[in-house]
Amino acid sequence: MSVTVVGSIAFDAVRTPAGERERMLGGAGTHFALAASFFDRVHVVGPVGEDFSDSDMEILATRGTITTDVDRVAGGRTFFWKGVYGDDLNDRETLETQLNVFEHFRPQLSQESRACDVLFLANIQPELQASVLDQCDTPSFVALDSMNLWIDIARETLVSVIRRVDCVVLNDAELRQLTGKPTLIAAAREVISWGPSIVVAKQGEYGSALITADDFFSLPAYPLQTVTDPTGAGDTFAGGLVGYLASRPDQLTDPDRDTLAVAMAYGTAIASFNVEEFGTERVARLRAEEIDRRVAVLHRMTTFAPDVLTLETP
Amino acid sequence: MSVTVVGSIAFDAVRTPAGERERMLGGAGTHFALAASFFDRVHVVGPVGEDFSDSDMEILATRGTITTDVDRVAGGRTFFWKGVYGDDLNDRETLETQLNVFEHFRPQLSQESRACDVLFLANIQPELQASVLDQCDTPSFVALDSMNLWIDIARETLVSVIRRVDCVVLNDAELRQLTGKPTLIAAAREVISWGPSIVVAKQGEYGSALITADDFFSLPAYPLQTVTDPTGAGDTFAGGLVGYLASRPDQLTDPDRDTLAVAMAYGTAIASFNVEEFGTERVARLRAEEIDRRVAVLHRMTTFAPDVLTLETP
Repeated sequence: MSVTVVGSIAFDAVRTPAGERERMLGGAGTHFALAASFFDRVHVVGPVGEDFSDSDMEILATRGTITTDVDRVAGGRTFFWKGVYGDDLNDRETLETQLNVFEHFRPQLSQESRACDVLFLANIQPELQASVLDQCDTPSFVALDSMNLWIDIARETLVSVIRRVDCVVLNDAELRQLTGKPTLIAAAREVISWGPSIVVAKQGEYGSALITADDFFSLPAYPLQTVTDPTGAGDTFAGGLVGYLASRPDQLTDPDRDTLAVAMAYGTAIASFNVEEFGTERVARLRAEEIDRRVAVLHRMTTFAPDVLTLETP
Repeated sequence: MSVTVVGSIAFDAVRTPAGERERMLGGAGTHFALAASFFDRVHVVGPVGEDFSDSDMEILATRGTITTDVDRVAGGRTFFWKGVYGDDLNDRETLETQLNVFEHFRPQLSQESRACDVLFLANIQPELQASVLDQCDTPSFVALDSMNLWIDIARETLVSVIRRVDCVVLNDAELRQLTGKPTLIAAAREVISWGPSIVVAKQGEYGSALITADDFFSLPAYPLQTVTDPTGAGDTFAGGLVGYLASRPDQLTDPDRDTLAVAMAYGTAIASFNVEEFGTERVARLRAEEIDRRVAVLHRMTTFAPDVLTLETP
């Protein structure tokens, strides 16, 4: 099996209450690939500039990720994002966005990237997501992320792409914005009525929820004493989730609820490491045993046994 | 066993996207009692005005709650709160607060209320909470709620009361405000260092988390397609949680993690009914079997089985 991700590869400048970095490797495609690479061979597709060094490329290639579709644009500069987090780490402010090589990006997938079994359309312009979908042969499982900007300015195109995917991964506020429905359940059911069979709501420090036509699963975030940098947590989560599914080929065309729940746990565990250091620092050197341990803790901290139901109507 | 709750008994005026009520029975003491009454005999303590009707008192007495310590103040008017909720039901705006009989309230507990096994200090002025604690004989379990107002203007008194209780139930933002710690875990550990052995963080639509010295348990809210009125959800949750513990006398002095987790589930289930209609309407006529069914669903929707851990370091 193989996973293809199309998304941003970026340099980020970040300030958080824990410190700052003036330029670090980031981007949705990068964070997704670093997480998914634990489970399967990952092809990453996206443009970078001449300022993208060989050592940056090496980090991107961690655990065997294939970077031949990373296009180093002659004379170009890599996408740049600068942001600051306040004491409430759920709120961040974007100080600067330089699209650079992303401004004229038109994805061109190689034969190998097109032949993927699993496709992740990270948060980019919906029409580019559609173009990637057109190019791919017959992936068994397609998941998509997006953001408020595209819901604001390209909602129709976004909805037309959502109709073609199996799984939508969005922040819960974005799900409400996209559908105009006030509750998570109502919003997710609306998206499911468009075509996808799975909706995953990212809820930041509160964890995540998964909704299908007839089921609901919820998982808290892994509790941390200290959070250093939340940047990329959502993409790392998606990489763990989608990567885990790719490692279960028997489940890919119609994943059952139990498989999806374990996939959520792997996404959650890897994302918890991501936020403990800046950028890709922690996940790049993460070991599988460390992930497994946190999955086991997540299991323990969500387990309860109401085996003797105690109530009787007085 | 018996439970005593000291807190507000109020009339609420509420507008939500689902509709409005100009005057309905509410207040922390009311919502707590309606939930806790499923599990044990509840004594409710608080003042009301001459405008408090016999039919209001009957609702308060649902499932046998004892109202002899509800003081009907001659010439007084019942506490009144008016608020409005926007599309994001986590945000509400207070339009009006009339303290009325609460302005000069000095709790005087009867012999029966003093002799409780379990005491819940709902959100009132911290010095009144202290006075109630002084009056009670030797409750086995004491829990406390509070709010941002008291953290702002009476933090020192509040902390001195917190040192004397077993369990603190607060919104997660209030826990951070109270302690100045940025993460839930760091904030809860700080509170535990003051004396309480249990911290429960209410997280609104995201559910709740329970932290002890050596454990963490998290539970999502029960997912609802439609939320009509969130008013009183937190107090209903506390009533289910604390009420369940009161029904487990063997666990009261040092409740184990599994008992606390089931208590959280009962609080969560009852609170989910509370928000489906305005004020006390739904919980007043709720039946125990309905609660049990939602506890069972909560169990199913949080269960996952990572029995075969799949990762090996590549």
